[in-house]
Amino acid sequence: MASCGVLRSSFLPLLNSADSSSFSSRTTAALPIKNQKFSIGATLQQDNTNDVVATGESLTKQKPRTLSFTGEKPSTPILDTINFPNHMKNLSVEELERLADELREEIVYTVSKTGGHLSSSLGVSELTVALHHVFNTPEDKIIWDVGHQAYPHKILTGRRSRMQTIRQSFGLAGFPKRDESAHDAFGAGHSSTSISAGLGMAVARDLLHKNNHVISVIGDGAMTAGQAYEAMNNAGFLDSNLIVVLNDNKQVSLPTATVDGPAPPVGALSKALTRLQASRKFRQLREAAKGMTKQMGNQAHEIASKVDTYLKGFAGKPGASLFEELGMYYIGPVDGHNVEDLVYIFKKVKEMPAPGPVLIHIITEKGKGYLPAEVAADKMHGVVKFDPTTGKQLKTKTSTKSYTQYFAESLVAEAEQDDKVVAIHAAMGGGTGLNIFQKRFPDRCFDVGIAEQHAVTFAAGLATEGLKPFCTIYSSFLQRGYDQVVHDVDLQKLPVRFMMDRAGLVGADGPTHCGAFDTTYMACLPNMVVMAPSDEAELMHMIATAAFIDDRPSCVRYPRGNGIGVAIPPNNKGTPLEVGKGRILKEGERVAILGFGTIVQTCMEAAKLLQEQDISVTVADARFCKPLDGDLIRKLAKEHQVLITVEEGSIGGFSAHVSHFLSLNGLLDGNLKWRPMVLPDRYIDHGAQSDQIEEAGLSAKHIAGTVMSLVGGGKDSLRFINLSS
Amino acid sequence: MASCGVLRSSFLPLLNSADSSSFSSRTTAALPIKNQKFSIGATLQQDNTNDVVATGESLTKQKPRTLSFTGEKPSTPILDTINFPNHMKNLSVEELERLADELREEIVYTVSKTGGHLSSSLGVSELTVALHHVFNTPEDKIIWDVGHQAYPHKILTGRRSRMQTIRQSFGLAGFPKRDESAHDAFGAGHSSTSISAGLGMAVARDLLHKNNHVISVIGDGAMTAGQAYEAMNNAGFLDSNLIVVLNDNKQVSLPTATVDGPAPPVGALSKALTRLQASRKFRQLREAAKGMTKQMGNQAHEIASKVDTYLKGFAGKPGASLFEELGMYYIGPVDGHNVEDLVYIFKKVKEMPAPGPVLIHIITEKGKGYLPAEVAADKMHGVVKFDPTTGKQLKTKTSTKSYTQYFAESLVAEAEQDDKVVAIHAAMGGGTGLNIFQKRFPDRCFDVGIAEQHAVTFAAGLATEGLKPFCTIYSSFLQRGYDQVVHDVDLQKLPVRFMMDRAGLVGADGPTHCGAFDTTYMACLPNMVVMAPSDEAELMHMIATAAFIDDRPSCVRYPRGNGIGVAIPPNNKGTPLEVGKGRILKEGERVAILGFGTIVQTCMEAAKLLQEQDISVTVADARFCKPLDGDLIRKLAKEHQVLITVEEGSIGGFSAHVSHFLSLNGLLDGNLKWRPMVLPDRYIDHGAQSDQIEEAGLSAKHIAGTVMSLVGGGKDSLRFINLSS
Repeated sequence: MASCGVLRSSFLPLLNSADSSSFSSRTTAALPIKNQKFSIGATLQQDNTNDVVATGESLTKQKPRTLSFTGEKPSTPILDTINFPNHMKNLSVEELERLADELREEIVYTVSKTGGHLSSSLGVSELTVALHHVFNTPEDKIIWDVGHQAYPHKILTGRRSRMQTIRQSFGLAGFPKRDESAHDAFGAGHSSTSISAGLGMAVARDLLHKNNHVISVIGDGAMTAGQAYEAMNNAGFLDSNLIVVLNDNKQVSLPTATVDGPAPPVGALSKALTRLQASRKFRQLREAAKGMTKQMGNQAHEIASKVDTYLKGFAGKPGASLFEELGMYYIGPVDGHNVEDLVYIFKKVKEMPAPGPVLIHIITEKGKGYLPAEVAADKMHGVVKFDPTTGKQLKTKTSTKSYTQYFAESLVAEAEQDDKVVAIHAAMGGGTGLNIFQKRFPDRCFDVGIAEQHAVTFAAGLATEGLKPFCTIYSSFLQRGYDQVVHDVDLQKLPVRFMMDRAGLVGADGPTHCGAFDTTYMACLPNMVVMAPSDEAELMHMIATAAFIDDRPSCVRYPRGNGIGVAIPPNNKGTPLEVGKGRILKEGERVAILGFGTIVQTCMEAAKLLQEQDISVTVADARFCKPLDGDLIRKLAKEHQVLITVEEGSIGGFSAHVSHFLSLNGLLDGNLKWRPMVLPDRYIDHGAQSDQIEEAGLSAKHIAGTVMSLVGGGKDSLRFINLSS
Repeated sequence: MASCGVLRSSFLPLLNSADSSSFSSRTTAALPIKNQKFSIGATLQQDNTNDVVATGESLTKQKPRTLSFTGEKPSTPILDTINFPNHMKNLSVEELERLADELREEIVYTVSKTGGHLSSSLGVSELTVALHHVFNTPEDKIIWDVGHQAYPHKILTGRRSRMQTIRQSFGLAGFPKRDESAHDAFGAGHSSTSISAGLGMAVARDLLHKNNHVISVIGDGAMTAGQAYEAMNNAGFLDSNLIVVLNDNKQVSLPTATVDGPAPPVGALSKALTRLQASRKFRQLREAAKGMTKQMGNQAHEIASKVDTYLKGFAGKPGASLFEELGMYYIGPVDGHNVEDLVYIFKKVKEMPAPGPVLIHIITEKGKGYLPAEVAADKMHGVVKFDPTTGKQLKTKTSTKSYTQYFAESLVAEAEQDDKVVAIHAAMGGGTGLNIFQKRFPDRCFDVGIAEQHAVTFAAGLATEGLKPFCTIYSSFLQRGYDQVVHDVDLQKLPVRFMMDRAGLVGADGPTHCGAFDTTYMACLPNMVVMAPSDEAELMHMIATAAFIDDRPSCVRYPRGNGIGVAIPPNNKGTPLEVGKGRILKEGERVAILGFGTIVQTCMEAAKLLQEQDISVTVADARFCKPLDGDLIRKLAKEHQVLITVEEGSIGGFSAHVSHFLSLNGLLDGNLKWRPMVLPDRYIDHGAQSDQIEEAGLSAKHIAGTVMSLVGGGKDSLRFINLSS
């Protein structure tokens, strides 16, 4: 597919009706037949002819451009003159369009060498250029929701030269980060926070009598989260000037849905947006916008002209009214790949003296302009290094699968034998592996959208009726459903099974995605069974254990990354473990190391290092943080002088439960030396997982060094740690 | 006001236009002038004449009834025949109306003797009767959102004889509780979970090929929470049959907004609902409903008749479209005090073969039928014992104020001196004391609605601009904003101050409101300063400390209940404490007791008990869980044989941080006996706070007993504990 390397640019389909096929087919295909029940009695403004053509004027001004993705460093004459947004202020529309192209080429070139989030950034190239042309960061605040689409923004705000370090140890973060640049108004990683944060900034501006602009850029996927609704509802009430750009690319846009690609849009909201797309006459936009005026009265906004009616979406327009009911002033939809339109609209909105909260609905395409991304099932959302000519990713062959996959295959095996097993995820079918389950059991898999709160209580409702829900949410995302875990599940002792993927350090996604706190916030709950497997076979047994535990909630935490290659159970079907029983993996003397989770393997490595020093240690796999294996801990404490607990989690978790048990049983009263090894009391930046483990002080060398320091190794106690630095 | 004891019933205003003044004035007053900007171009169906009159037919059938609230046990001839809902099936509409009246009298009579939630239950008397007449619990599932309105439901489902025990130790819970009755389909206490849970039950029913009905009853206040939106969006997508009754009483309906009454409705949603009320022609309802039909096709619902259009709300009807866009089939608004209408609608909806998710919007009045509640500013939402004749509550005079009030007055004092101080709460102006702040600084106080997620990130946004936000949320409710605390505040090290009221055991509200986990889930966060005051003066100093800490987030946990009467700082203005420094309150020998929070006072009591046994103990007030006072802990550990840490919180919190420090500093390696005293590993039922403390094993006697058991008291070690049982 070498010929794909030079692409006819297709990022301006709206300027050429002959080129609008991909856009048209999407809007046509997505017509919401099911929701037509709501259109009875209304004047549906749908326009199925898909008249997504531009004015003749534009066609004469703009010519189709050809982008080059050869793997050579692209020629970027305009971008080369831009270090910061203030260098963009005098560019013409044509130059801005060219700049958007160059950004696109630059991003493909850079990300092909580093890996990272690709298609979201390609989709907002024009948007980013238009925003930075019209608004003045850092005085004006641009808040990128989730933040994986911020690569063009980073390039235009002084970080171009460091883009090749993105997501790497000591390099640029993959998301906006306040520490990194004054132009990053708000950090992100999790979705749907941008309107809340933007509203806070807008209200603060008003209180401080400033007059800057605040722009929150949020995707349609992120709009399914309750927080976005809460924020819009509050924005509509406070009526502070806030610009929300709804970047509608018909994708649930979480950053890590990489296994099978992002989930398809779910929920009624996506249908409303689809109807808006279908009903729009793009070609009238600029003419209409020319007449746009808005005046602010004391208590009422008066909207003067017909064209404004067009722009804002007339009342009753399907889809728009959702936002209007929440108090947003709706404008759109706007072609998000048309720089001229975007610049025009942003300038107009900027000039409004007091518009209140405005929602500008723009339509973009993920991966726009780079054919391999446009045609990929996952739009090349998150990629490893790839060949820019073909888009082919240079994935390393591994002998084992990811824990995610072992989980999914194991859950399918459970579900084959028990038709009560159902699965729930929050717009993360790819990331959680549940796409595999979905294919096998389409009626028993529920993608609820980016809606962790609902996911948890929905699972609780399923459990009340005797189903066996596996609620599969990344460790750090489950924080968003914590109250529901406490109030709806644990307090009622409902047997919901929480599958907490990405527990512990997660590598390139960095601290926003680090699953540091799950053991702490789950094991404090009275009814919860808390498990962590030491390898992939154990994970599969724990899935079986969770399926078996039917009188209370349970959870399993497991990490990002691949299994270690142990034999897995026949037909992927685990065997339930005895609840609350750990196991000794290696018998030794004087020193016991008790691990929780896959870090048990690191404990075994530490034991090997210590063996070389003639120190024989016992290594145990706790399996359960709650209920603890009291017999095991008693034995370890009584038969050894030193007991070390090790976990890839924060303070307050496994170590806290062990120390509590030790103390209440008088096992700390004598000369036992107990040491907890946990994640350090700071956030660990993005980077290789191995680097993060080193930084956390949780490598085999650190564990061995800790043992040496306690058994009188003197200077030797430090040798392992020195080795690691 | 003895004459108020016999009231002209006003719970049927819609049957008599002369009697509709209170209803009319509310709808008229609430016309959303501000939102008229959205009506341009639309056909607004508002009817400002407020034609809320009923048919002549009804007037002849029904006569105004007189309810009696004399304090005598009311005569309840129909209620006396009802033990369970199946006894209600053959009642006529007139008998059901009478039953609703009797329930109202019964509730006023009972709650006047026990205290509890009053007006929410009075408001749903007709609704409860109609639901239980039409549907068949426990096969059909009724889910009461929040649950404080479930008293009539409890009375009708076999618990009438135990109503006088409600919210008391060993008595009925104040909320629905699955353990208590098969008719309580889902427990509650926190708001906005009912649609999620109901959807889970509906989907489970479908998977299990059952055919029961599921009804979620949710208030307009609860509708402001993101979870309700997430759930509706998902319900609209899944299209399972689910009935949502939106009980619109124009009140933010959280259960504990008791200080100054529930907050007024905030947010754009409440305006949309107001418009729906204003646009409604009640009188046509029954006639219209008669023709209501609905047929289900394969992919599209076809709605047959004109009257159906009326019922469902025509497209573009302001307010309704919000729900319709989310995929709900909107019916309403319906007079929620008209049993005949309710029964009619419920029967019709029940007969629909496959309606998908239906939202029935009913209008009710909190406190309906009991004048003292109707006219009270807080509608007598949550009450202590009261005189039923006058509604006057029998509040005990206390010499001190609540911690809530000390907090509020102290924050006002801070704000007087620093105009950067702002306050945020989530529909809890009364409960958090921020109504006091609101009165003094109306522009600096933000009620965001029941929207804890948004509240936290909104506060983060305010903090980015240099304001000093005090985000005041009950400990157990902050669980709902946990991800935002981690991801938006702590990770970015933004100086948001979290004021966690109702930390620890909370008495009658029970485990849903117990603030057990806050220290655990907050102190594991790297940047968070975690404080707890030992008395009200300390609380005020900690408010000042939080205002002072400007480079990282901080939080203060403080309990329900009153201060102990210590001198408070002049003008309510505290003095910032040295961060991370505790204090010794009493010097002793051998034994040290280190408390965190107001339980320090209990530690002092324990010290007195021990003094009587000639055991002199040191008592220290930690003040900070994070950063810990290492010097203090080192001193306590080194100078005593026994160290006891005491907190009214779960495992993983203060004790975990102390043990971690002790271990890493080698202080546990010798003969120090360290014992953690925390909340037990179970939920503690509602009851008197003192009973709960006893049950938790955290009374002075328990602390003293623990000390005795460790210092060789032998049998004596148990004497204190025996005393308490």
